[in-house]
Amino acid sequence: MIVALAGGVGGARLAYGLSKIKGEALAVIVNTGDDFEHLGLSICPDIDTMLYTLAGWANPETGWGVDGDSWSFMDQLGKLGGPIWFKLGDRDLAIHVQRSHWLRQGDRLGKITSRLAQAMGIASTVLPMSEDAVRTKLETDQGDLDFQDYFVRLQAKPLVRAIRFEGASSARPTPAAMEAFDAAKAIIICPSNPYLSIDPILSVPGYRECLQRRIIPCIAVSPIIGGAAVKGPAAKLMQELGAEVSCVGVAKKYAGLIDGLVIDGVDEGLADAILACGIKPLATKSLMRSLQDRIDLAQQTLDFALSLQR
Amino acid sequence: MIVALAGGVGGARLAYGLSKIKGEALAVIVNTGDDFEHLGLSICPDIDTMLYTLAGWANPETGWGVDGDSWSFMDQLGKLGGPIWFKLGDRDLAIHVQRSHWLRQGDRLGKITSRLAQAMGIASTVLPMSEDAVRTKLETDQGDLDFQDYFVRLQAKPLVRAIRFEGASSARPTPAAMEAFDAAKAIIICPSNPYLSIDPILSVPGYRECLQRRIIPCIAVSPIIGGAAVKGPAAKLMQELGAEVSCVGVAKKYAGLIDGLVIDGVDEGLADAILACGIKPLATKSLMRSLQDRIDLAQQTLDFALSLQR
Repeated sequence: MIVALAGGVGGARLAYGLSKIKGEALAVIVNTGDDFEHLGLSICPDIDTMLYTLAGWANPETGWGVDGDSWSFMDQLGKLGGPIWFKLGDRDLAIHVQRSHWLRQGDRLGKITSRLAQAMGIASTVLPMSEDAVRTKLETDQGDLDFQDYFVRLQAKPLVRAIRFEGASSARPTPAAMEAFDAAKAIIICPSNPYLSIDPILSVPGYRECLQRRIIPCIAVSPIIGGAAVKGPAAKLMQELGAEVSCVGVAKKYAGLIDGLVIDGVDEGLADAILACGIKPLATKSLMRSLQDRIDLAQQTLDFALSLQR
Repeated sequence: MIVALAGGVGGARLAYGLSKIKGEALAVIVNTGDDFEHLGLSICPDIDTMLYTLAGWANPETGWGVDGDSWSFMDQLGKLGGPIWFKLGDRDLAIHVQRSHWLRQGDRLGKITSRLAQAMGIASTVLPMSEDAVRTKLETDQGDLDFQDYFVRLQAKPLVRAIRFEGASSARPTPAAMEAFDAAKAIIICPSNPYLSIDPILSVPGYRECLQRRIIPCIAVSPIIGGAAVKGPAAKLMQELGAEVSCVGVAKKYAGLIDGLVIDGVDEGLADAILACGIKPLATKSLMRSLQDRIDLAQQTLDFALSLQR
């Protein structure tokens, strides 16, 4: 069993590769700090991106949403005077409507996610980080913002001064996630935003401790390549928070929690700086353009992890 | 001011004609007995059909739903294992999602309907018959059925023994509907199903009394032409309930409530039987195929009503 921690697009790409290799022997614990209510619908952006990606349904251009989706609902919503800043595709809507309905009927998010994954033909286990609401809030130069306000409505333009995860301190990991850790031979931190996607998971009491007390290897894959984020606001955010915008910054962020860091070949010159953090680097082609790239990187990451047995 | 009572497709067609002639001086009171919750969405089939028809957005083939709608949401919902017996088009979904959201935020159905009508450019007033939940239930040979179970899922095939309107006795008319009656010069009962669309309205204490005590003319347009319903299960249902399946059956159903009944030319031979109910018949071309047919029938109905000033 392998446990992976992930957020949305970048993390899901590696998870896809891991899933193709490990199948049922992979459990992915997904950030729910971005979850929010919109138009009365319970939207879980990272879980959805993970499900769509693992099912092979994701839009390959954007990384989020459903491939080939259409926008009739949004168009009509606009005509009715509804809010159109958050784009909901016609196909994408199905998961939000069905999930919201099940949640209102009293089903838990973990059970719902598992039911959706099964319907989508996903062999691996997809787990929300918690059943309890954790909400990522950003303190910015434009005031305190909800995550989607910052990320979608304001296109991550505000300057971020601090990030907090409301509800995290009283949230609990899902029992299924803890069981997955117990059965795991290695832990992979996917190339997701360390501050916005992985930190929310680690902020739920239990996860950070699992990593700190681990007797199995834990490997991260850097989302920063050549000083830039492959996708999303990670680089801008790291700079605003005073972190080094490089895979060394990622190593420092994860110091004490990981045994190895997969970095891209272009960052090979930074290997010694990573070693200085007590973390073993593996330089390889880490940019995932094709589906095969995802599988290749996943295989290298798994081999690397198992070579670092503690 | 003219007040019209209506259900879905057939009623909405005449209301379209009335609306083109009267504009702001028309208030349509719409059946909400068919309303139901589906997938956590509050669906108001007759209000939606009325809004779509008055806005010119309705699907001309089916009479319900939005013209040119697509089915990506339904297709995806099926893939996720969701219920697909009730068809929700991608565009149509917008009104359900937006209304459900407003309702959960505490807005009332009347306010929401008015806001939607305004966004859709509808000059006439569309009013739900009540803010209180009234639910049409059918006692059938297959047991007690919710309206949509009977009408959509079982395609109106069960034999109906009786109809009841749950919640009606404690429901109240909307104040706006009562104000519309006070200002009205005539009342038009649209060619909707007398048992499934008009009876629910009349079952809410206040409406029947308004019609019984009227000092203005009230005219119905028969939904039965040549012994058959133009659309829907009206004819089958009237037979099952022991009523005469003809415009005379409609006249008997509305006896005491209306002063005149518009019937189709093919039923001219039944004029005397209608007169015998104390109701003045007007035989004309009452089948509405084109948009102009709706306006012509509306004009004749209005002229007929005003000629019957009490």
